[in-house]
Amino acid sequence: MRDPATPRKVVSRTTAAGALPAMAAGILERVRERAPRVHCVTNAVAQTFSANMLLALGAVPSMTIAPDEVGEFTARADALLINLGTFDAERRAAAEIAIKKATEAGRPWVLDPVFVERSHPRTAFAKVLADLHPQALRLNRAEFAALTGAAWSEGGLRAYALETDAVVGLTGETDLVTDGKRLARIANGHPLMSKVTAMGCAGSAVVAACLAVEPDAWHATVAALMLFGVAGEMAGARATGPGSFAVAMIDAIYALDGNVLMRGARVAC
Amino acid sequence: MRDPATPRKVVSRTTAAGALPAMAAGILERVRERAPRVHCVTNAVAQTFSANMLLALGAVPSMTIAPDEVGEFTARADALLINLGTFDAERRAAAEIAIKKATEAGRPWVLDPVFVERSHPRTAFAKVLADLHPQALRLNRAEFAALTGAAWSEGGLRAYALETDAVVGLTGETDLVTDGKRLARIANGHPLMSKVTAMGCAGSAVVAACLAVEPDAWHATVAALMLFGVAGEMAGARATGPGSFAVAMIDAIYALDGNVLMRGARVAC
Amino acid sequence: MRDPATPRKVVSRTTAAGALPAMAAGILERVRERAPRVHCVTNAVAQTFSANMLLALGAVPSMTIAPDEVGEFTARADALLINLGTFDAERRAAAEIAIKKATEAGRPWVLDPVFVERSHPRTAFAKVLADLHPQALRLNRAEFAALTGAAWSEGGLRAYALETDAVVGLTGETDLVTDGKRLARIANGHPLMSKVTAMGCAGSAVVAACLAVEPDAWHATVAALMLFGVAGEMAGARATGPGSFAVAMIDAIYALDGNVLMRGARVAC
Repeated sequence: MRDPATPRKVVSRTTAAGALPAMAAGILERVRERAPRVHCVTNAVAQTFSANMLLALGAVPSMTIAPDEVGEFTARADALLINLGTFDAERRAAAEIAIKKATEAGRPWVLDPVFVERSHPRTAFAKVLADLHPQALRLNRAEFAALTGAAWSEGGLRAYALETDAVVGLTGETDLVTDGKRLARIANGHPLMSKVTAMGCAGSAVVAACLAVEPDAWHATVAALMLFGVAGEMAGARATGPGSFAVAMIDAIYALDGNVLMRGARVAC
Repeated sequence: MRDPATPRKVVSRTTAAGALPAMAAGILERVRERAPRVHCVTNAVAQTFSANMLLALGAVPSMTIAPDEVGEFTARADALLINLGTFDAERRAAAEIAIKKATEAGRPWVLDPVFVERSHPRTAFAKVLADLHPQALRLNRAEFAALTGAAWSEGGLRAYALETDAVVGLTGETDLVTDGKRLARIANGHPLMSKVTAMGCAGSAVVAACLAVEPDAWHATVAALMLFGVAGEMAGARATGPGSFAVAMIDAIYALDGNVLMRGARVAC
Repeated sequence: MRDPATPRKVVSRTTAAGALPAMAAGILERVRERAPRVHCVTNAVAQTFSANMLLALGAVPSMTIAPDEVGEFTARADALLINLGTFDAERRAAAEIAIKKATEAGRPWVLDPVFVERSHPRTAFAKVLADLHPQALRLNRAEFAALTGAAWSEGGLRAYALETDAVVGLTGETDLVTDGKRLARIANGHPLMSKVTAMGCAGSAVVAACLAVEPDAWHATVAALMLFGVAGEMAGARATGPGSFAVAMIDAIYALDGNVLMRGARVAC
């Protein structure tokens, strides 16, 4: 078997912050044109919202976790999401099969180690998966601390990206995205995003969709979190609470186009 | 055991397209009056949306898939939905138990072979279930092709209905419903219906609810897809994207009455 | 091991109906301040809606049912919800582990015996759990009848509360909450609440959140059902059907404050 990471390793020269919104607009356009299939092994709470987010974005979701078919679904998908938000036995088996198949087929995959700080078996499993060369990892500060054993810092983030050979997207008030060398800070987003369950999980599904059409995983992750944050601001302008926000977020992702994205993006390197 | 299909086999003489909207209005009214119980063995992504759709329609949903109680739930239900959208071991066991119980009790059931084109074990399992005499099958063109091994055609559709002894509802831009002899074409619907996950699954739940109150399975399936399509148009008039569309769809099903349905129906034979 | 129920047994002297809205406003304020963690072993249909309800209220939900981590999640939570709405093997194992852990840690827990009238194994399991000393039980009339073998009456309700040593919240057009001695009647609510799946389950999650910050379980349950009913009326004023109602309900729970609650409460003893 060939090295799974190498064939997709593409590092573009575009790292200037000013060029990133246009890059993201291009990725959004490609998702809309190509309608990539994204297979999601994700938690029960996130499945419906993530599927609707992917459909609104222009991607085609599938969600099965049955061990005897998840391999075939993954092989026919353009990208894979592994999310640990619920940690039942069938999902764990499915995750391992799907990752093996994605790796063999040269498909990019994202790891979202949800709530790893809450239980030791989950932390241990997440560490095993992080060593299997995901193209991107999306997590928050508590999850980062649980995985690495140290509080978050920019240096620690870069080191972890180099160690796992994955792009790390740390979400929070400002999202940070690094491949160890390049680092982007995305200031988009809305406070109600943290009041809707599975919002982060759905964001990771968007990362997977962008990875499906963009070989530079840092660009794909920056684009995904940027467009997600801009859509969050659009949704926040219409919502009267977290219920209407979740609905408006799907509408915003659907309505988003390159011009709105480029006008709304707030990103620095 | 008596032949499971025979007792419910009722073929009304009403096949003229002009009479179908009033027939559908009558079925809608009966669902509202009788509040039939519909047991759904459906996929994880579709459960909540389908339950809300059935409640909005006036039916009473139940959703358990536990093998040791699904039989009892089915025996007390007025119709059954089997949907293969997620294909875990427990759901497969539940499907077989529930179908056996529905058959013994003379209850109608619908098969929705979601995504059978994506994996071979799923196709094989769907074929086994299709041979167990569902009153109706709802599927799209890719699913039809996977089940029958041939691309869709009107002749193929009629032949498949005769072969399975089931009403076949093929959904798409125009929905086609046939029992092999009679064939209706329903032009209602809205493009955003394909942008909401589990919309088709929820439509199959509506088919089950209509079968619960109407012994002519062709009438029941025509009525279900017609009212679903008309509600889709009502929802589309209010929505600003797929998020608000999904919400408006539930409201539209709830608000739908016979007059609106008869005015909105676009059906040909 | 110490008696699990005793340490949390607190009976306040405030039982006059006039004092209950202000008491409920105080509990709401404490939930907002303390952001209690509520672990939910709940059914697949209810997971997402319940998590969003808890987030909107100001609590922090977790939802895992994996047997090897549910204990750790429960031990780190401030309250536990056990809901029997779907009854798969993994959830049953999870329920037993979580209850044991909550009891050992002195955490309050709520039992919601959904649909126990529909299957005998479920009734039997619910009876076993009801004997494990939940602080509160939330159910409707059919569920009460299935558990106790007798139709609902005020005397029967009080007797059942004394027998189980739990506060019993019987929801319906008027909600009744009793610990056997004190009894409150809450007239708040909206007809559309019964047209949204898992609305009752989400209400039980709110009971758990209130128990996390209030040791008098009768006060906590009264407060939870009162604020839930007032929010239902706020949502009903904005909704055009059950789809928009579900969304508005989340927004209403988020917007609710002590003044609105005290103005809206309709409660008698």
